[in-house]
Amino acid sequence: MLVHKTPNQPTTKIRISPNLVFGDTSPAIIAGPCSIESFDQLLSIATAVKKLGAHMLRGGAFKPRTSPYAFQGLGEEGLKIMKKVGEMVDLPIISEIISTDNLPLYSSYLDMIQIGSRNMHNFDLLKKVAHLNKPILLKRGMAATLEEFLMAAEYILKEGNSQVVLCERGIRTFETSSRNTLDLNTLALLKLKTHLPVIVDPSHAAGNREIVAPLARAGLACGADGLIIEVHNQPEKALSDGPQSLTFKQFDSLISQI
Amino acid sequence: MLVHKTPNQPTTKIRISPNLVFGDTSPAIIAGPCSIESFDQLLSIATAVKKLGAHMLRGGAFKPRTSPYAFQGLGEEGLKIMKKVGEMVDLPIISEIISTDNLPLYSSYLDMIQIGSRNMHNFDLLKKVAHLNKPILLKRGMAATLEEFLMAAEYILKEGNSQVVLCERGIRTFETSSRNTLDLNTLALLKLKTHLPVIVDPSHAAGNREIVAPLARAGLACGADGLIIEVHNQPEKALSDGPQSLTFKQFDSLISQI
Amino acid sequence: MLVHKTPNQPTTKIRISPNLVFGDTSPAIIAGPCSIESFDQLLSIATAVKKLGAHMLRGGAFKPRTSPYAFQGLGEEGLKIMKKVGEMVDLPIISEIISTDNLPLYSSYLDMIQIGSRNMHNFDLLKKVAHLNKPILLKRGMAATLEEFLMAAEYILKEGNSQVVLCERGIRTFETSSRNTLDLNTLALLKLKTHLPVIVDPSHAAGNREIVAPLARAGLACGADGLIIEVHNQPEKALSDGPQSLTFKQFDSLISQI
Amino acid sequence: MLVHKTPNQPTTKIRISPNLVFGDTSPAIIAGPCSIESFDQLLSIATAVKKLGAHMLRGGAFKPRTSPYAFQGLGEEGLKIMKKVGEMVDLPIISEIISTDNLPLYSSYLDMIQIGSRNMHNFDLLKKVAHLNKPILLKRGMAATLEEFLMAAEYILKEGNSQVVLCERGIRTFETSSRNTLDLNTLALLKLKTHLPVIVDPSHAAGNREIVAPLARAGLACGADGLIIEVHNQPEKALSDGPQSLTFKQFDSLISQI
Repeated sequence: MLVHKTPNQPTTKIRISPNLVFGDTSPAIIAGPCSIESFDQLLSIATAVKKLGAHMLRGGAFKPRTSPYAFQGLGEEGLKIMKKVGEMVDLPIISEIISTDNLPLYSSYLDMIQIGSRNMHNFDLLKKVAHLNKPILLKRGMAATLEEFLMAAEYILKEGNSQVVLCERGIRTFETSSRNTLDLNTLALLKLKTHLPVIVDPSHAAGNREIVAPLARAGLACGADGLIIEVHNQPEKALSDGPQSLTFKQFDSLISQI
Repeated sequence: MLVHKTPNQPTTKIRISPNLVFGDTSPAIIAGPCSIESFDQLLSIATAVKKLGAHMLRGGAFKPRTSPYAFQGLGEEGLKIMKKVGEMVDLPIISEIISTDNLPLYSSYLDMIQIGSRNMHNFDLLKKVAHLNKPILLKRGMAATLEEFLMAAEYILKEGNSQVVLCERGIRTFETSSRNTLDLNTLALLKLKTHLPVIVDPSHAAGNREIVAPLARAGLACGADGLIIEVHNQPEKALSDGPQSLTFKQFDSLISQI
Repeated sequence: MLVHKTPNQPTTKIRISPNLVFGDTSPAIIAGPCSIESFDQLLSIATAVKKLGAHMLRGGAFKPRTSPYAFQGLGEEGLKIMKKVGEMVDLPIISEIISTDNLPLYSSYLDMIQIGSRNMHNFDLLKKVAHLNKPILLKRGMAATLEEFLMAAEYILKEGNSQVVLCERGIRTFETSSRNTLDLNTLALLKLKTHLPVIVDPSHAAGNREIVAPLARAGLACGADGLIIEVHNQPEKALSDGPQSLTFKQFDSLISQI
Repeated sequence: MLVHKTPNQPTTKIRISPNLVFGDTSPAIIAGPCSIESFDQLLSIATAVKKLGAHMLRGGAFKPRTSPYAFQGLGEEGLKIMKKVGEMVDLPIISEIISTDNLPLYSSYLDMIQIGSRNMHNFDLLKKVAHLNKPILLKRGMAATLEEFLMAAEYILKEGNSQVVLCERGIRTFETSSRNTLDLNTLALLKLKTHLPVIVDPSHAAGNREIVAPLARAGLACGADGLIIEVHNQPEKALSDGPQSLTFKQFDSLISQI
């Protein structure tokens, strides 16, 4: 398998910008809101997280929501806002693509393309995104086994694109006191089995901002190559995932801990 | 929500052919191989299951496989074979679509379109398939909650297509002595909450043909509106899902039990 | 293993009374309240379920409750009430024992001893109860695998007591729309692997009386040798498990369906 | 609830010896074999872990094993060996008690009593062990929710014994590439909800010594008050849990990382 590492093979470095190389010694920090809501909102957040130490800006333009009546994102307009904001604050940008429509156009706005948990098994999307030859962040499905997660990455590598970063974001278990159980057992095993960088998403695992920082520290201590964190200027007014979004102050505190 | 039933609302009848109406009093029986492997294979199986009492022929042409190196199905050629075989044995046909490419063409071969478990959360696919105005069999995701399953159906109904049949096919749990735990609790709750017909797939839940028949009987006793069963002429040589495919003799025995 | 069946070995018959033989052709029906609350309550329920067709009376005297502040049962007084009521209505009685204290005394009141889910792994209790040489109903732990369940029974058989009836009562999964997912996959496999009778507890699986009847029908259709059902004269006032207890009318309806 | 913390309440300190105070600033390290196998084995391990920095010696004398035919531990003889070894190397000792028989005698050998995962719901044992007024290490059940775990501790505190240390040791999930998924979400929430110290058992979570160290680091980074680690002089010959036991060299390396 292309994803497997040989003995002593180092982690593959995936370079996004001079300041952001996944798999390098210092952890990559991606931060931003769950959803792009407006130019002003994104600029405010991007300016803050850049200043506080983030290396990349995240933000959702196409949101796969459980209910068809929930906010579905700003679509292409969101990507345009994001591109402009990224240039203004000098941060590379990442966003999720959920459809194969307009792939070349949509991906042209982005420095890295995210495949979300709900689409980890969408092999058609994986293959078509692979062909864009852009770096890809592949999130683990909520109920995907370690083996299935690696095989999803293999679908991309097999198409000739080896710029894949894996993301552990919590699995669905019987425990409902938090959103999804961050599976650091699998993170530790992934670091033994694959040469691809692996980052951790403590925000979606937590579902509650009170425990994002301890989970972030735990992920890095366990060997993660980086973090992706939801941060919002007004979490209580966020159109999605407000309860798990950090305030600027909390993000500042988190950065100082790691 | 469009999927919810009002008190005393009867199950919505979804008519595929004179002999197949989902939601009617007698259970709908769909049978066939996991994958369409050849014209001869499919004709052999279709002839047998028709004679033994099936109302619809199933068979996979596009297979979403965990590994990119596993057999991926015959693609459009499989659909053509299926259309011909369906006409020869006079059975309506159902197959899974996994990509939005060529949707009108591919769906034109079929009497009913299946959305598989791995794509239950692929909202882009759900919406585009909805617009074809064909009956849809929507399988529950392996780790989807009852609420998420109903919301996935709502994505289709919201687009104006109410010909949706739900399919419970087992959920991922800690128990690995079988493939996926058939969740009849949720079947029973679905029958209380939605007016859509709900069928059961005991083959994928079982992963082992020895327990397909008891699970099929259980599903119907619990109120299912039908069954979808994997049957193969030579299960030990099947290109996929052989261990859970019934022989003709076992399928005959199952039909006589229900 | 003593629990395993040889090819074609019939189910072991466990005789409690002339009207109740587990493993015989007709299903064994155990019914009664979650907790014994008073003599009048139990007599009312016992009279009703006897008339409606139950073969054995259930009722809890020692209740293992999640919170130490919840009603813990009437203790020995409850067993005395139960013995008297059982004699009055001519039904054998079963209750759970949760401690090794006073085992000979407490068991002397009972016709069958229940080991609850929380104690399936309490091997000390299993061994000591085994030595009483009374029939035992062993409930599956909420997160016990099929193999662990059989090994718990093996602890009892190894001590020389082979009068063991297994009970599938639902497993803990991510799905919280019902209490515990009734695992009929494992029931079907147990019927293939062990000669011990296996019954189903749809009440604890459901957690909601609306779906007890469909789950009970499903269990029997899947091959269960009997049912254990919670029934209460005033479910809305029950001291425990009210929401999943059937009314007399619902129990009557269930019996007529099976 | 007695287990809940008030705002700003510090973690309760539980003092075992001058060098071991759970809830104090530096993490408590418990180490030793899964099972006590002989005097020589235990002395060898105890000498090594003491020298490498452990504060307490662990070792099983009564082993709750899935199969009744597996090694069940040396029983009281094991406790006597442990007491002697503990005195020789000057380490306090902890072992699991699984029965209420001979409680005062057995506990008299020990400095701290362990309640294992399989007995977290054995409320009779919890109450009787509570009355011994010794420090207790309470391990979370494999499928216990956060709330159930706290309520099990409440059973002990309610009896007047507040010397309880909680231990997160992994939960049962669908993921079988490791033994049990270490649930650091719940650890982080426990640190917010209870004043009791909480430690982590990475050995049982891992089931594989290759990932014990990263999970141990993650647990401490997440806020754990200590670790309990399986260490063996000859892991490949251990009578139980060999694959997850660290060698002395691995334990040394782990200690130097934390």
